[in-house]
Amino acid sequence: MSFVLMPKSIILMTIHSIDILDCNAGDHGYPFATNFNPEINLREVSAKGRYWEDGSWIETEAMEIKQVWDYPEIGAKDSYLLYHEEMESLVKHIKGLKRIRFFMTFGESYLTHMKCLENVGILGIKAIEHKGQKIVPLEFLATLLPDPSSLGEHTKGKTNIGIFAKGIKEGKAKTVYIYQVSDHEKCYKEVLSQGVSYTTGVPAMIGAKLMLEDTWQKKGVFNMEEFDPDPFMDELSIQGLPWKVMELEADASREVL
Amino acid sequence: MSFVLMPKSIILMTIHSIDILDCNAGDHGYPFATNFNPEINLREVSAKGRYWEDGSWIETEAMEIKQVWDYPEIGAKDSYLLYHEEMESLVKHIKGLKRIRFFMTFGESYLTHMKCLENVGILGIKAIEHKGQKIVPLEFLATLLPDPSSLGEHTKGKTNIGIFAKGIKEGKAKTVYIYQVSDHEKCYKEVLSQGVSYTTGVPAMIGAKLMLEDTWQKKGVFNMEEFDPDPFMDELSIQGLPWKVMELEADASREVL
Repeated sequence: MSFVLMPKSIILMTIHSIDILDCNAGDHGYPFATNFNPEINLREVSAKGRYWEDGSWIETEAMEIKQVWDYPEIGAKDSYLLYHEEMESLVKHIKGLKRIRFFMTFGESYLTHMKCLENVGILGIKAIEHKGQKIVPLEFLATLLPDPSSLGEHTKGKTNIGIFAKGIKEGKAKTVYIYQVSDHEKCYKEVLSQGVSYTTGVPAMIGAKLMLEDTWQKKGVFNMEEFDPDPFMDELSIQGLPWKVMELEADASREVL
Repeated sequence: MSFVLMPKSIILMTIHSIDILDCNAGDHGYPFATNFNPEINLREVSAKGRYWEDGSWIETEAMEIKQVWDYPEIGAKDSYLLYHEEMESLVKHIKGLKRIRFFMTFGESYLTHMKCLENVGILGIKAIEHKGQKIVPLEFLATLLPDPSSLGEHTKGKTNIGIFAKGIKEGKAKTVYIYQVSDHEKCYKEVLSQGVSYTTGVPAMIGAKLMLEDTWQKKGVFNMEEFDPDPFMDELSIQGLPWKVMELEADASREVL
């Protein structure tokens, strides 16, 4: 899931809308490669989009909804509405929520490759018969593409992952934007992985740390938003993922029209 | 090879330049498919280009040279210089030839697919290891793509294959354009194959017919341009590939600038 929770001190009393904004402005130098497991990545991107509004899920065609968002330290990027699994639990746990959406940035060249690969059937996940062998097209494509773990040392640029939320704070309509910017080369220097791996792995490590320290511990199975966010947000800053907050007017927007 | 020879009655006494013009303006309705064996087709198109001028072969990058030619009954089409094997013997047998080139039409979408497929490595012809099996990427792509023989019943539009030649005739500089237009749907009605198969198969059949009738028969191995062209050109018209000739001024061009 998106790792950015909201600390209690700045949390909106009632959150009406959340846009999770996942921007990777990195360049790995290949005409086409995926930043993590190609099978997961390409299925995620070629699947239908979905967002939640007024109590129900609304399905879109893959990449049907495109918005241009302005990402701090990066700039305006084409962002596409995707289905992303963290929304499933957030709509259950955030009372008063009216809408939640997830956007991820993709460049034109990436999407052209995706479309062409889809058109020739190589994103298929059902095995086909090839010279007497059963081959899953997407698995074969994964074999062809560069190993995501090999991209790190070539990747330049930044990531920006955040939450743009609207709601009520101290009785007033407000907009809050919390985001974290990472630098691919800096991440690689520290852990020999580029930013997408770094920003995926470190928050999971923090969750495990908080569980082992009994800070996040209850009997049963819980989603992270059911725990106190503050120790998590503090650890993000300590463990290499410092975040920033913009507290904005109710009608503020980061969307470039 | 291109099946269009030149009948003796209109042949140029000395041919200085030949452009073989191979246009397929058919639409099979798929986002991407090849009209014949995908392995041959994709290798032909992704290979370096080559043409012959002033006694030597000149190599180009794949798709490096693009010209827009105006094809009768079709219109202007992007045409790319390719290497094509018939040029090998034509430069030997046509005395006085200064230049020969081969152009084939491709749409933008076809070339975008080609480029993307190339970028992910699926046009590769060397076997790679995939889950313990040796797989040749291009062969796997061929398995994924529609069987060319299945395209016939969906293909609409025309082909135009011809020769645009310049040289000397009756002491005067002249330009001659000989071309044959076929209709995909008409070809399918007659032989259950679309125009590319039809225009490939019928000339080969005519060659065989002329050999069996002893019209084209000599001891040894010969290229078709070493035989009398007239019986062949007559048979083309009889066997469903009627051709037309434009006799033009020396400076005539069908290239759209």
